[in-house]
Amino acid sequence: MNRIQSALEALLGRIDTPAPIVLTDVMQENIDRMQAFAVDQNLDVRPHVKTHKCVEIGRRQVKAGAVGITAGNVGEAEVFAAAGFADIFIAYPIWAAGTKGPRIRKLAGTTRLRVGVDNLAAIDALADAMGEDAGRLEVVVEVDCGARRSGAPADAAGELAAAARNRGLVPAGVFTYPGHGSAGPDARQRAALDQETALTTAVRSLAAVGITPEVVSAGSTPTVEFSTSGVITEIRPGEYVFNDLNNTRLGACTEDQIALFVAGTVVSDWVSDQVILDVGTKVLGREGSPERGFGGIAGTTATLSKLNEYHGFLPLPEGFRPSVGTVLPVVPNHVCPVVVNFEEYIVTDSTGTTLERWPVDARGFLN
Amino acid sequence: MNRIQSALEALLGRIDTPAPIVLTDVMQENIDRMQAFAVDQNLDVRPHVKTHKCVEIGRRQVKAGAVGITAGNVGEAEVFAAAGFADIFIAYPIWAAGTKGPRIRKLAGTTRLRVGVDNLAAIDALADAMGEDAGRLEVVVEVDCGARRSGAPADAAGELAAAARNRGLVPAGVFTYPGHGSAGPDARQRAALDQETALTTAVRSLAAVGITPEVVSAGSTPTVEFSTSGVITEIRPGEYVFNDLNNTRLGACTEDQIALFVAGTVVSDWVSDQVILDVGTKVLGREGSPERGFGGIAGTTATLSKLNEYHGFLPLPEGFRPSVGTVLPVVPNHVCPVVVNFEEYIVTDSTGTTLERWPVDARGFLN
Repeated sequence: MNRIQSALEALLGRIDTPAPIVLTDVMQENIDRMQAFAVDQNLDVRPHVKTHKCVEIGRRQVKAGAVGITAGNVGEAEVFAAAGFADIFIAYPIWAAGTKGPRIRKLAGTTRLRVGVDNLAAIDALADAMGEDAGRLEVVVEVDCGARRSGAPADAAGELAAAARNRGLVPAGVFTYPGHGSAGPDARQRAALDQETALTTAVRSLAAVGITPEVVSAGSTPTVEFSTSGVITEIRPGEYVFNDLNNTRLGACTEDQIALFVAGTVVSDWVSDQVILDVGTKVLGREGSPERGFGGIAGTTATLSKLNEYHGFLPLPEGFRPSVGTVLPVVPNHVCPVVVNFEEYIVTDSTGTTLERWPVDARGFLN
Repeated sequence: MNRIQSALEALLGRIDTPAPIVLTDVMQENIDRMQAFAVDQNLDVRPHVKTHKCVEIGRRQVKAGAVGITAGNVGEAEVFAAAGFADIFIAYPIWAAGTKGPRIRKLAGTTRLRVGVDNLAAIDALADAMGEDAGRLEVVVEVDCGARRSGAPADAAGELAAAARNRGLVPAGVFTYPGHGSAGPDARQRAALDQETALTTAVRSLAAVGITPEVVSAGSTPTVEFSTSGVITEIRPGEYVFNDLNNTRLGACTEDQIALFVAGTVVSDWVSDQVILDVGTKVLGREGSPERGFGGIAGTTATLSKLNEYHGFLPLPEGFRPSVGTVLPVVPNHVCPVVVNFEEYIVTDSTGTTLERWPVDARGFLN
């Protein structure tokens, strides 16, 4: 029996389903392991809070040695700043329109704030929003390293950083996201190399305009183990805190390092060799595919084959026939979209003896 | 310019993105059209609140003539009961374990409550939970009509209803969900026929044990126009209140009947013929496919081709080149998973002049 199974067994009768269960001992091991890796590599850790959106978990990451946190948008940053986090990087190409300009200016007055930029118009909008407080806002130029998402070409970093400097903003460095490292186990190391190459080019581009970066920031849970402290000074992993089946498949974690699962109940069993769980897309998101499935049952080979909003379809492998009312541990393919569906985590450890509830503080804060 | 585009244009500068925008005039037309159809067909409307999770919208549905509401789980029902809704059907095979038993008993003391059942063990659990209040809980037997999800075989309805009666619960009728009607435009009418057949069989099965159903309840937005008042007494559409691209593709609504869109901003444009929007899976869910896309831009042929958590990838059709900072109206493939990602709706109408905020009251209440 694995740790998820033993925790769930101890919790039975004390929880309603569906519910996201966090094992704090597994989570703490994940936090400590990442920190030890970073210390060994002389890297700073700035965990991405998009994964957990939880102040208590962010505090544990900082206590373990994180230099600050990474947020995905202004709303997340506001929630964590209000909770006392003093060093926040919004790793996103912010467009400071509407009330976002005043919100960023206010935020920069309460916490050390870095935001991403990847184009001149966004730099102008940020500078306009900051007004005479421009010197309080650090900008980090996003460069693309092959994900073809956001990010300027690496050799344009200097031009953008200089433009920010000219507008009175503080050009703090460069960052990138090797998203193409999630394509498969073989893609991870290659994406990490692309990342190193792009950041090296970006740093040279900064040097050409006389800027020495304070931070050279890299992703991500799947690629982090290949990130060495050559040019990189900081890593921004998010998912490592909980891990999930996708990361297991990529070889980025083991199943025993998964710290979050969803407790679900068998509610119907009329179809031959299939049961229905109360775990659908409104719990798991639609992360997966018919081939890969949409989530697995810990300790078994059973995999959800299809999801409706409140129903998960679970074909039963030979010898596995849970009856109606059985509570099963569902392990998500991708943990980040699960968390935001709930008001709170059910928090325990591998023994399942303790039971706390922690709010998902920054859920719903999307802009 | 369509209604979504004109509303968005009028809202520019007054909203942060991403944000879910509701057009109340389009929504009211949708509510009124469904009610008129039901009156014409001599059917009751019991809208499924899973789509909007919003008390204010539920009130408008009841004001228009809905006999009550449908909920997807106990948590949703609790939120609406606390807001004064007096007739609630949880159309789900409830398993009354943990605190769910006491919660259902309490709920049945504050509102007229119907819950779904599809097996004997669940009936026993409900009866145990209700104790001497069993007579306050109406149960509706779920039968399968081809979706192969939850629901007993139609001819088992009588046995289940009789078992409920024997335990002191009130057997109120039968329901089914023709989920296979979402497979494509041709599937809708066929699924509606399957639904009619299954419900007819179920009603005969009830008659065989001496039970005349008070309610014979049918889904759903895609199939509802083929639901006639032969055996069916009630319809439970949900998505019709907002509509979405999936329903447009099925022929269940027109594009001009879509009452909800997401305002998103172009945040990056470095990749040729593509821009990145601040609308990813944490806004839209991962509803769609690479072939069908993950959401469209109203008034254009542009379709999101890929989503990350905070990023939407938008390939640009010929002649469409929105600059960084442009706010675009994203129409979801499937509206239900969008709503639960936000704390509140931005509420306006086609003119975009008014601006209110309505809470998504029952978000996060999943068990």
